[in-house]
Amino acid sequence: MSASVDPSRLSINQETIKQWSLPELAEGCIKEGITAVGLWRAPVQEYGVERTARLLRESGLTVTSLCRGGFFTDIDQGARARALDDNRAAVDEAAALGTDTLVLVSGGLPPGSKDLAGARERVADALAVLGPYAEERGVRLAIEPLHPMFAADRCVVSTLGQALDLAERFPARQVGVVVDTYHLWWDDQVPAQIARAGRTGRIHAFQLADWITPLPAGVLLGRGQLGDGSVDFKAFRALVDGAGYTGPIEVEIFNEALWERDGGEVLRETAERFRTHA
Amino acid sequence: MSASVDPSRLSINQETIKQWSLPELAEGCIKEGITAVGLWRAPVQEYGVERTARLLRESGLTVTSLCRGGFFTDIDQGARARALDDNRAAVDEAAALGTDTLVLVSGGLPPGSKDLAGARERVADALAVLGPYAEERGVRLAIEPLHPMFAADRCVVSTLGQALDLAERFPARQVGVVVDTYHLWWDDQVPAQIARAGRTGRIHAFQLADWITPLPAGVLLGRGQLGDGSVDFKAFRALVDGAGYTGPIEVEIFNEALWERDGGEVLRETAERFRTHA
Repeated sequence: MSASVDPSRLSINQETIKQWSLPELAEGCIKEGITAVGLWRAPVQEYGVERTARLLRESGLTVTSLCRGGFFTDIDQGARARALDDNRAAVDEAAALGTDTLVLVSGGLPPGSKDLAGARERVADALAVLGPYAEERGVRLAIEPLHPMFAADRCVVSTLGQALDLAERFPARQVGVVVDTYHLWWDDQVPAQIARAGRTGRIHAFQLADWITPLPAGVLLGRGQLGDGSVDFKAFRALVDGAGYTGPIEVEIFNEALWERDGGEVLRETAERFRTHA
Repeated sequence: MSASVDPSRLSINQETIKQWSLPELAEGCIKEGITAVGLWRAPVQEYGVERTARLLRESGLTVTSLCRGGFFTDIDQGARARALDDNRAAVDEAAALGTDTLVLVSGGLPPGSKDLAGARERVADALAVLGPYAEERGVRLAIEPLHPMFAADRCVVSTLGQALDLAERFPARQVGVVVDTYHLWWDDQVPAQIARAGRTGRIHAFQLADWITPLPAGVLLGRGQLGDGSVDFKAFRALVDGAGYTGPIEVEIFNEALWERDGGEVLRETAERFRTHA
């Protein structure tokens, strides 16, 4: 067991409390003494990028990451060019929001394709283009390996080892990885891969959610509140801390039951669970 | 691409056509020229073990595997002792049915536990007891790694690498592995691990199902008919054949839509898909 977590490392990803508008999120965080948030592009665009940046600045809140770029695996060249354009816009948005981390979800298999290796190469091709663009704007790309149950329809990068194999083709100041407990908790290679990521300075984000069963249809919205499931968060944090990571720890839970509750109550519960379990 | 599959290698796992009784399965296979089946304990026990053995013998059908033993991860000693008793019965049933392969599903995390490594050690403890018992009866234990989405509630062995780490503690004539495309297709380590399994003679069963999305609630019954999803079966067979495996290839699909159709139609379709895709 590690020592207690420093509560000031908590960052609330806005999707955890999706029922809240950005002003509600800012106000709720201030009230709860939380100083950092993770954001998603769609709600930020809806509220306005500059307007969001100003709101958070005036609220004294730090933005720890922006979700998400990616979806690089299309076979069609035109679609891939459009994805690159959209990712350049995502980099610009991250820079405008003052975060140095853009989370990337790589994309799944194109319709009809069974070629995982080919799809992963197209991810590498996109990183080669986007990495320098992001670096010039002070943004690091963070490849997020998603759980293998998303390999077909969402993300062909399924393990931290695969994410590092991709990231290490590029400078660490351009491309790193996200360590997300929900996606990685089952993998006995994770301790060695977290150490590898730490050695090369590639842990660009650390996110928490618990694994609960049964999974809902479509499996996307089945993440659990910290402490409700199978993940040993203290063991994970010991590995990530041990790898030299000292940054924020984002709680990112997609769960319809949490979204139906009072946002303030969910925020207080999440902060309390973070102190107890992380 | 490999050469066409030898159609005589096809074995139909009875769960693929769960709507059929054992006599219907035997009759259907004969009619379709299929010579081998994989069985499950519950329907065999219901029909009677000796009666099933006689039915299949008289029908000229080979039994390629019996599913399933396992569920070794309980913390409670009494529960583990009962699991061992039940697994000895499963070995006896396999021997009575004339199959040399008992498929093992290891079991998930016990309620409240977050200790995957500890649970995997309890699987090893059980194999140490059961391996010699099975060998004396001419039965090999085949550890089946299940997809990581089952790690919490069904099987703490999630990759072929983990399964081999466990199996290699024991003689290959006692403990090997199941290569099931549904569970392993996403893993870029699989080619190396299949080669490793082949070198030590530990591929005890080879099973096919396709990966389709979206996954249904609970995710257990979401397997796809061959050719409907993301799995490159010819590439998988090339790896398994290349590792020296020359045995039966079992099709094992859990899919409620298939179970609602006419059994004979599903069997014909499955045989046709096997010839085309495997």
